[in-house]
Amino acid sequence: MSDIKTSWSLIAHGGAKDISTADEQSNREGLFEAIEIGTRILSKGGTALTAVEEVVKSLENNPAYNAGYGSVRNRDGYVEMDASIMDGRTLDIGAVACIKEVDNPVSVARALLKEREIFLVGDGATKFAFEMGFINSPKIKVKTIKNIGCDTVGCVARDVYGDLAVATSTGGLEGTRAGRVGDVPLPGCGFYADNKRGAVSVSGDGESIARVMLVAEFLHLAKNMSSDEASAKVLKLLDRVKGEAGIISIDPKGKISWAHNSSHFAVGIAKQDSNTLVFLKKGDEK
Amino acid sequence: MSDIKTSWSLIAHGGAKDISTADEQSNREGLFEAIEIGTRILSKGGTALTAVEEVVKSLENNPAYNAGYGSVRNRDGYVEMDASIMDGRTLDIGAVACIKEVDNPVSVARALLKEREIFLVGDGATKFAFEMGFINSPKIKVKTIKNIGCDTVGCVARDVYGDLAVATSTGGLEGTRAGRVGDVPLPGCGFYADNKRGAVSVSGDGESIARVMLVAEFLHLAKNMSSDEASAKVLKLLDRVKGEAGIISIDPKGKISWAHNSSHFAVGIAKQDSNTLVFLKKGDEK
Repeated sequence: MSDIKTSWSLIAHGGAKDISTADEQSNREGLFEAIEIGTRILSKGGTALTAVEEVVKSLENNPAYNAGYGSVRNRDGYVEMDASIMDGRTLDIGAVACIKEVDNPVSVARALLKEREIFLVGDGATKFAFEMGFINSPKIKVKTIKNIGCDTVGCVARDVYGDLAVATSTGGLEGTRAGRVGDVPLPGCGFYADNKRGAVSVSGDGESIARVMLVAEFLHLAKNMSSDEASAKVLKLLDRVKGEAGIISIDPKGKISWAHNSSHFAVGIAKQDSNTLVFLKKGDEK
Repeated sequence: MSDIKTSWSLIAHGGAKDISTADEQSNREGLFEAIEIGTRILSKGGTALTAVEEVVKSLENNPAYNAGYGSVRNRDGYVEMDASIMDGRTLDIGAVACIKEVDNPVSVARALLKEREIFLVGDGATKFAFEMGFINSPKIKVKTIKNIGCDTVGCVARDVYGDLAVATSTGGLEGTRAGRVGDVPLPGCGFYADNKRGAVSVSGDGESIARVMLVAEFLHLAKNMSSDEASAKVLKLLDRVKGEAGIISIDPKGKISWAHNSSHFAVGIAKQDSNTLVFLKKGDEK
């Protein structure tokens, strides 16, 4: 373990989606609870990698979000989930897509960090999860809300050693073809983390995000402008393919940034020496 | 159909891999045959999209290459294939991963261009293929050569209308876990095409390519330098994660470029008003 070098920071999101008045409280509470878990880890000297995994696990376990327990069903009536995790120290990636019957896809993705393969899909991903001892729980397949919108959960963190990490997870898009994968497990589209460049997670219209490589474009913009400016500017790339998205990031110096062109984008933010804050859209913090 | 605006150009590769003396002839002949198919299409005013699909189909149908008919088997003893195609006019993408029992994964990827989903994996991808009438052929599952190395086939083209397209296909990596996906179906990692920026296909160590987003990085480098310089420079990013790769590209003006840090990288090249050329490594053309 490295020595303590800096202060930690943390941001998580619960999806770029419409949040009805009825759903505001559950979205706020879920993010607050998840961020508190990350705060406990980071404030005790835990790694960014562990923090992002545990924050995303908390969101996966919460039915308010379309990931893990709260995942929507595809056209064939069953749940397929995608998740990813990336270590900004090493550029190690673990990602799964269309995995079934596990509680926490993000933890399966983390288990892949130690393997030769970085991305497993379909039955192969589920088989790997069972081999690694992830228990099949009957909790999955409970949510049948229609038209939930395109949402994903994600978290980026910087720990006291100055290391960055990102994790994302989604239950996909209600009613799509079986086997559909969006941006969540795609490096440079839905996520990326590099200690030298920053850690980023996006959410929204997965197909549109992938077609413009939203995260790779953000990282390039951020070379020549602030991450706030880059976040706002990169969302304009979606005009070419149409689509909504939200983006969260932490730069190598620990600066948090977020933006969205969706009606809502629920985020929770915590930093060393400040309290946890939760917002349901940009502007709420003013 | 647009009016004729410019001259066409075409480059295809058969993988960044070691080519033994015994395999030189089959690799040369296969690329020559595939490029001739693309040449016939482009010289008659066919689109770049059709050219890249048909060139890749020809390579998939040739057992000399690890894609389609020549695919290697995974740890569980069966063939899972990945392919992608992208239309540089619209940024439309079609991609499949871990598809089974179809002759031409690239054509399934092309069929996805018309759908809401851009990326289907596993059983869902195979199911989509059957629904779209792609016939299950007993040809697949014939190749059992060990240690074939990490290879992929790919093609980029610019048609007489000035439009760009890319297609890639692979049988994956011998002996990996079922469900393993490399860079081939990942936008910004294994492929990308944008009329405004260029069309690119890479091949090599898929995990390493994905971890550094090789194609997205190439497109950014190419903003500020020639595509020859960008090709050479982008391969150096692999030093950080270790790995071999080859890259082919056509820029918006039709200029072809290619580079590799593997021992061999078989490419076939054709341009309007010049003959088809095939090389097994950089330097052979001098």
